[in-house]
Amino acid sequence: MIYFDNSATTKPYPEVLETFRHVSEQYYANPSSIHRFGSDAERLLLQSKKQAGQLLGVEPDEVVFTSGGTEGNNLAIKGIALQHQNRGKHVITTQVEHPSVLEACKSIEALGFEITYLPVDGEGRISVDSVQNAIREDTILISVMHVNNELGTIQPIDEIAKVANQYPKLYFHVDYVQGLGKVTLNMRQSGIDLCTMSSHKIHGLKGTGMLYIQKGTSLFPLLHGGSQEASYRAGTENLAGIVSMVKALRMVLEKQKNKFDHLVGLRDKLRSELSQLPNVYLNSPESGAPHILNFSVPGFKPEVVIHALGERGIFISTKSACSSKQEDESAILNACGLSRELSASALRISLSYENSKEEVNNCVSALQEVLTELSGVMG
Amino acid sequence: MIYFDNSATTKPYPEVLETFRHVSEQYYANPSSIHRFGSDAERLLLQSKKQAGQLLGVEPDEVVFTSGGTEGNNLAIKGIALQHQNRGKHVITTQVEHPSVLEACKSIEALGFEITYLPVDGEGRISVDSVQNAIREDTILISVMHVNNELGTIQPIDEIAKVANQYPKLYFHVDYVQGLGKVTLNMRQSGIDLCTMSSHKIHGLKGTGMLYIQKGTSLFPLLHGGSQEASYRAGTENLAGIVSMVKALRMVLEKQKNKFDHLVGLRDKLRSELSQLPNVYLNSPESGAPHILNFSVPGFKPEVVIHALGERGIFISTKSACSSKQEDESAILNACGLSRELSASALRISLSYENSKEEVNNCVSALQEVLTELSGVMG
Ligand SMILES: Cc1ncc(COP(=O)(O)O)c(C=O)c1O
Ligand SMILES: Cc1ncc(COP(=O)(O)O)c(C=O)c1O
Repeated sequence: MIYFDNSATTKPYPEVLETFRHVSEQYYANPSSIHRFGSDAERLLLQSKKQAGQLLGVEPDEVVFTSGGTEGNNLAIKGIALQHQNRGKHVITTQVEHPSVLEACKSIEALGFEITYLPVDGEGRISVDSVQNAIREDTILISVMHVNNELGTIQPIDEIAKVANQYPKLYFHVDYVQGLGKVTLNMRQSGIDLCTMSSHKIHGLKGTGMLYIQKGTSLFPLLHGGSQEASYRAGTENLAGIVSMVKALRMVLEKQKNKFDHLVGLRDKLRSELSQLPNVYLNSPESGAPHILNFSVPGFKPEVVIHALGERGIFISTKSACSSKQEDESAILNACGLSRELSASALRISLSYENSKEEVNNCVSALQEVLTELSGVMG
Repeated sequence: MIYFDNSATTKPYPEVLETFRHVSEQYYANPSSIHRFGSDAERLLLQSKKQAGQLLGVEPDEVVFTSGGTEGNNLAIKGIALQHQNRGKHVITTQVEHPSVLEACKSIEALGFEITYLPVDGEGRISVDSVQNAIREDTILISVMHVNNELGTIQPIDEIAKVANQYPKLYFHVDYVQGLGKVTLNMRQSGIDLCTMSSHKIHGLKGTGMLYIQKGTSLFPLLHGGSQEASYRAGTENLAGIVSMVKALRMVLEKQKNKFDHLVGLRDKLRSELSQLPNVYLNSPESGAPHILNFSVPGFKPEVVIHALGERGIFISTKSACSSKQEDESAILNACGLSRELSASALRISLSYENSKEEVNNCVSALQEVLTELSGVMG
């Protein structure tokens, strides 16, 4: 099997699964229970938070453990909106966000908020000026993703943060789900207020994530209840999931250090080989993240190509998994101004540090075969 | 070790953990990915939903997978409140709910809702009449728990449902977290609209839960994004956690069938032995759930007793874990009208089907020893 759908989700590292098992068996007490068995669980929780803070370069209590990226994005957006609506009801985001940001924004339109969806250039990038120009008296939040999940485009987060930081009443949220472990973002230094991460994109387990919340930021929680996570997020902690996530984070950052060039090498090889195939158009910018390569094969239905590759044990995808069943065109490629032909025939290969050159070779040959076969059928 | 804190959380069944490992390793694809590997994951998800529906006696698509009981309660309460606020802004609940219900209700007071917190009798039970009398023109939701987490008191859910069902515009939500697997509730027959369950209370894994949402009920989601869970709850599904939860559900319902009398036997033995100890007052009603026994030892600080038992490897608790670090009195026992002396010295033993008579004996002897020792220290 060649798994090239790592932006949809990743295979958990074996060490991560082993950690999950160990913690579930040995530390199953409720960290809020005051007996010794509960305190042991609580200590492990605090250690995990401390380690997460160290790995991310932030304070431990700025890390809030969530159930995943979707929750992080919703907590950031609705949490700021509901808590600070007396200051204003305007939010700025982009046309190329993940559905968990776009739909969260749309949902608060029903509560009286106005949202500006910034346009992007041909590579999916917003301009810093457009952010600056969109800011109004009543803007309370800017939400911009770091790495785009379909294209790999990297937004100018540091520059946007500089703009946002000129307005002390304005919160800046970043969806860092695709960037973590591949393209470094320094949350602390850039002055980001909120930053979403998800564990299953970095070989951790589904159902876990983190939201960085800069100290002093007040939010309307999605989950009220006990005082877990400093009351930002109530509910019995998924301790085994949390410890496993921090393990995955440590491991992926290690790989980013040692295997980054390997990953870039794979992507570049893919780029150059795919660009030599007839009728294949590369959509991802050269300056994009090292793990995502989006391309179109006009005239071929992506699902047909995907199924044919799947029969050969090679798994790639169309646009993001979350929107893959809705329409056949990619809203993100549309926003980039690509023709219908290109945006309706887009495919995405997304890599991990675990992939090899051989897999790239096999995938390219298989794709070539598949396209030839399908051309025959179609001709 | 004698683990008597099963209302705080339970030890995962080994089979549940094994299922988690298996699914995480073999079905890690994103169920929304359209390749074969993704469809396999999706099929497993649908099977799990079907099985959950069968086990609970409801339709598969009435089961929404969540991150736990706190999310279920918040989704039910805020989801109904935000979605149906044009019909009215009054909610009825009780004074003895879990913090995830109480705080969710308080949080929407800030959004203009008015909440009636019904009082309880000396055993923690509300009267059906009080519910009937509290209903107003603008009442949109009644939220009442099934089994109380501190006392084990069972609320008259079926009778309340009968009242609620006379008002077609009124939603009825039940927090079934403590009852599931111990005291059967027939959601479908009683005509409950929303019902919260949590996996880690039935030997499943933390970070997973279910919310029953009766067909046709519209909610404002907490998590917007992809169209997972019929858009009631966006976010990449925690498939391994879900399959494991359904396994735990199947197993606990089996035990409820085969080992219910065993559990009642343990509780009754505890009742009779504790009632013979001097200075021990039983707070749980005789008609309560079979796994919870609450008692007070006036003059003794619960945390001191708990730590002394903990040194002997016996783990019991004070009030619910979620509120255990906040005040020293139990708000629930206060609501029952117990004296400060009793409500500030309450202890809770909570059992599982896995516990034994021997453990009960050892716990009672240890408690006797501890109380004697501590009396000496205090005298
Ligand atoms: C950019 C981006 N944001 C958010 C998410 C949502 O994260 P999760 O799947 O953990 O809910 C995803 C992936 O699905 C993503 O790619
Ligand atoms: C009655 C009751 N409701 C809700 C909850 C919350 O469930 P969870 O811990 O899964 O968030 C609990 C336990 O903590 C509970 O006992």
